[in-house]
Amino acid sequence: MSDEIQLVTHVENIRYDKEGEALFIIDQTLLPGEEREIQTCSLEQMLDAIGKLRIRGAPAIGIYAGFCMYVLARQIQETEPAAFYARLEELGDALVACRPTAVNLSWAVKKQLGTAREHLQEDRPRLLEALYQGAVEIQRDDQDKCTRISEYGLTLLQEGDGVLTHCNAGPLATSHYGTAPGPLLLAAERGMKLRVFADETRPLLQGARLTAYELQRAGVDVTLICDNMASIVMKNGWVQACFVGCDRVAANGDAANKIGTSGVAILAKHYGIPFYVLGPTSTIDMACRSGEQIRIEERDPEEIKRLWYEKPMAPADVKCYNPAFDVTDHSLITAIVTEKGICRPPYTASLPALFDNKE
Amino acid sequence: MSDEIQLVTHVENIRYDKEGEALFIIDQTLLPGEEREIQTCSLEQMLDAIGKLRIRGAPAIGIYAGFCMYVLARQIQETEPAAFYARLEELGDALVACRPTAVNLSWAVKKQLGTAREHLQEDRPRLLEALYQGAVEIQRDDQDKCTRISEYGLTLLQEGDGVLTHCNAGPLATSHYGTAPGPLLLAAERGMKLRVFADETRPLLQGARLTAYELQRAGVDVTLICDNMASIVMKNGWVQACFVGCDRVAANGDAANKIGTSGVAILAKHYGIPFYVLGPTSTIDMACRSGEQIRIEERDPEEIKRLWYEKPMAPADVKCYNPAFDVTDHSLITAIVTEKGICRPPYTASLPALFDNKE
Repeated sequence: MSDEIQLVTHVENIRYDKEGEALFIIDQTLLPGEEREIQTCSLEQMLDAIGKLRIRGAPAIGIYAGFCMYVLARQIQETEPAAFYARLEELGDALVACRPTAVNLSWAVKKQLGTAREHLQEDRPRLLEALYQGAVEIQRDDQDKCTRISEYGLTLLQEGDGVLTHCNAGPLATSHYGTAPGPLLLAAERGMKLRVFADETRPLLQGARLTAYELQRAGVDVTLICDNMASIVMKNGWVQACFVGCDRVAANGDAANKIGTSGVAILAKHYGIPFYVLGPTSTIDMACRSGEQIRIEERDPEEIKRLWYEKPMAPADVKCYNPAFDVTDHSLITAIVTEKGICRPPYTASLPALFDNKE
Repeated sequence: MSDEIQLVTHVENIRYDKEGEALFIIDQTLLPGEEREIQTCSLEQMLDAIGKLRIRGAPAIGIYAGFCMYVLARQIQETEPAAFYARLEELGDALVACRPTAVNLSWAVKKQLGTAREHLQEDRPRLLEALYQGAVEIQRDDQDKCTRISEYGLTLLQEGDGVLTHCNAGPLATSHYGTAPGPLLLAAERGMKLRVFADETRPLLQGARLTAYELQRAGVDVTLICDNMASIVMKNGWVQACFVGCDRVAANGDAANKIGTSGVAILAKHYGIPFYVLGPTSTIDMACRSGEQIRIEERDPEEIKRLWYEKPMAPADVKCYNPAFDVTDHSLITAIVTEKGICRPPYTASLPALFDNKE
């Protein structure tokens, strides 16, 4: 298969059909078994989509919320501007309440409410068009950032390289390229051959279910491994670079990401393999001095003990420790790749420079 | 719970009731959901037990085979010595054919056939008693070795220590104490408090299903984690030592063990935590110069993609790499703990000394 020319097709996780005025998403709960687009028209359908994680990934939820606000605005019966706005605000609150900790969700709802306020005195078609453009802008902005991150990331790779990834920060979680897998998808588009190893990423298996799916679908030569196989894969000489995403980067370069990331970084250092963190500058928190200030969320032990299993795979009452993230020390990170460029150590100098030189 | 006094009860995986003349095993395929002892009387039941992995673990299979040969010998109708022996050999061959690569299985069958030959001219009760004693001796020998390994291992720990384990080399796979978890079980017996972290050990989850079960059952304070959480657990300062088993140790100290072991060793080195390999001297192969000579078995990708799942958790046709073992470089191993003592680097000196000084 690797010798044939592949049709490179990205996953389009959120698709607004302007002609038919219909909002579609790929139902991620059916992946990787089934790729099904579902249409979400009503608030109920949207709450179901967000609440049941049919759409997930911080940027993706933001983009989706932008379009939801437009779709919901179209359905508002109230003609009087203040009543219209009050109703839109009510609908936005309902969306936000669905996943209150999803920052991008509340951010996108707030952004669209601002757009509505700006155009509230215009006629309804113009107001709605402004909301549509607002949603498109959120999506395009994420696509632009991901594309730039992917372009910068690709400069770190050479034809034939092996790349190890952990977890998922791809098209399903963002838009088009995603962050960590972005350079790999871009390489596939340009006919550059890479060999990718995707950690399955326990306990929720985002690597197996989503990353492997996205990369395979795009024609990337991807091999799925269990998390504990990263060491032997590196020892075999199959990995020339590690690419991971990030949830939050501290001012000193410490990076919080999916649990297991710090272990991959330590292995990479041991085997002399560069370790790259990819993410938009919006994940860099200059107010956070170091990783020690990042609180690690602990999740339900049942995720480890029985999720997706027919029968429990551990003693029912055994204690579990289930941290969702870990912090990778800046000393283990070769470079941090953002939409504004590649930062190298010392991060206390290179990260602030990103923000001084505002575009 | 950790403040109460625990009743320390070990798993007794193979139990011969001499009074009732009945051979019992714990059906490991039902663990950890159900702990059920099953009686195996006939050859068919024994083949089912071995073939369906109701009993597993190299030493355990050897011990079981020893008792099987005794039970089967009791049922032989032939009175003439040569005919008796021919029939016993036939039954032994059937056992061996069930798992032809299990070295301990064929070794135990061969050992019992030798015992039968020695006592073939004696009356039947004496011949059978010799076979019974032969089986008991195999079991006792393994128990002795495991006990000595456990005693040596325990000298490496202090009250309150945190210990990280990977995979399973406990009572279910061996006898009584096992190897890597042996010191932890011994500590529990003696009222010494330890805090154990058990890696779940993907893809077959031996850590979650078996180690967590054995330790919890024995009153050890055990916390189950996913393999990729070892790094954060070490970073949190919760681990003072790593204890792992071994499948084969080369003359230079390189040790093959369950996949993921080498990753744990690299993390331990990074965090400055001692990393101990525990196993009987029978696993040390002085004819094998280094880990490079150890062939790594690759297993069915379906183990990663769908085993135990109701639905596949990865794209059905995605490539997988599924090595069963990896080799931990001797430079990462603090000590190798055997029934003859603790070997420290340089292993090229300490390992041969084990064999020079034969007991």
